[in-house]
Amino acid sequence: MPAISSVTIRRARRDDVGVIVGMLADDPLGCGRERLEQPLPPSYFRAFEALEQDPNIQLVVAEDGDGAVVGCLQLCILPGLSSQGASRGLIEDVRVASRCRSRGIGEQMVQWAVAEARAKGCKLVELLTHHTRVDAQRFYVRLGFQPSHVGMTLRF
Amino acid sequence: MPAISSVTIRRARRDDVGVIVGMLADDPLGCGRERLEQPLPPSYFRAFEALEQDPNIQLVVAEDGDGAVVGCLQLCILPGLSSQGASRGLIEDVRVASRCRSRGIGEQMVQWAVAEARAKGCKLVELLTHHTRVDAQRFYVRLGFQPSHVGMTLRF
Repeated sequence: MPAISSVTIRRARRDDVGVIVGMLADDPLGCGRERLEQPLPPSYFRAFEALEQDPNIQLVVAEDGDGAVVGCLQLCILPGLSSQGASRGLIEDVRVASRCRSRGIGEQMVQWAVAEARAKGCKLVELLTHHTRVDAQRFYVRLGFQPSHVGMTLRF
Repeated sequence: MPAISSVTIRRARRDDVGVIVGMLADDPLGCGRERLEQPLPPSYFRAFEALEQDPNIQLVVAEDGDGAVVGCLQLCILPGLSSQGASRGLIEDVRVASRCRSRGIGEQMVQWAVAEARAKGCKLVELLTHHTRVDAQRFYVRLGFQPSHVGMTLRF
C-alpha cells in the first residue's frame, strides 16, 4: 500500500477541464461515454461555464504537493422541502487518477464534501454509485454512508 | 382500480407549502422526519424561498380538475462535465396524496419531469428510492428506469 498522500482541495479552473475529462474517461464505465480528443469537444467547456455560474455547485480538484491534479469531485447543495426544509448534498463524478489510487485521496475529497455540505446546513449527503462498483460501495460504507437506496437511472 | 385522473402540472406556490408538507409527512419514512404543525415551522418557508431562487430547480405540484393539489415532485437540472458535458436531471420528493394513489398521477408527474429534463438537454435522469419502496422501484422500471446504481446516504 503506497503512503497516504495529503492533497489540497480547490475549485476547478477552466485549465483543469482536460485533466478532469482524462480522469472521467480513465474508468471502465466512463471510457465509453467521454471523448478525450485534442482539442476537447466544446461541450465540456460549455458545461464548465454552466457549473461556474451555479452558486449551488462546486466542482473541485485534489492537487498533490507538486501542483498536479490527481482527483475530482462535484458537490451540489440542493434546497428542498423534505426533512423540515433541510438542504441535501449530492456528490457526483468522484475520480482519482489511476496512478494515485489507494493513497487516501478519494477519502480526503469525500470528507471535504461531507464537511462542506454540513457547513452549508445539509442534514443528508447522497450519491449514486453503479452497482458494479463494489469497491466504491465498501469505501463509502467505511466513511459512514449506508446503501439505503436504489439508484435508478434513465439514459436517453 | 380507480379511473385515471388527468392532472395539471404547475410550479408550486408559497401557499402550496402546507399541502406539500402534508404529503411528505403522510408516508412511512417521512412521518418521522417532518413537523406538520400549525403554523408550519418557518424552516419550510425558508427552503421554499431558496428553491424559488434557484433557476435549476423546479418544485411542481399536480392539480386535479377541482384545483386541489394531489401530488408533488422536485426536479433539479444539474450541469456536469461527465458524459461529454451533459446535464442530468435529478428527481426528488415524489409524492401523491394517499387518497389519490393508483390513478396514474405519479406517472404523469414523472413523465413530465423526464420530458422537461430532456428538453433542457439532459442525457440522464436519476433518482434515489429507499430500498424498502419496492412498489416505487417497480413503478420506475415500468417507466423505463433501470435499478443500475446503489443509492448511498449519510444523515447527520
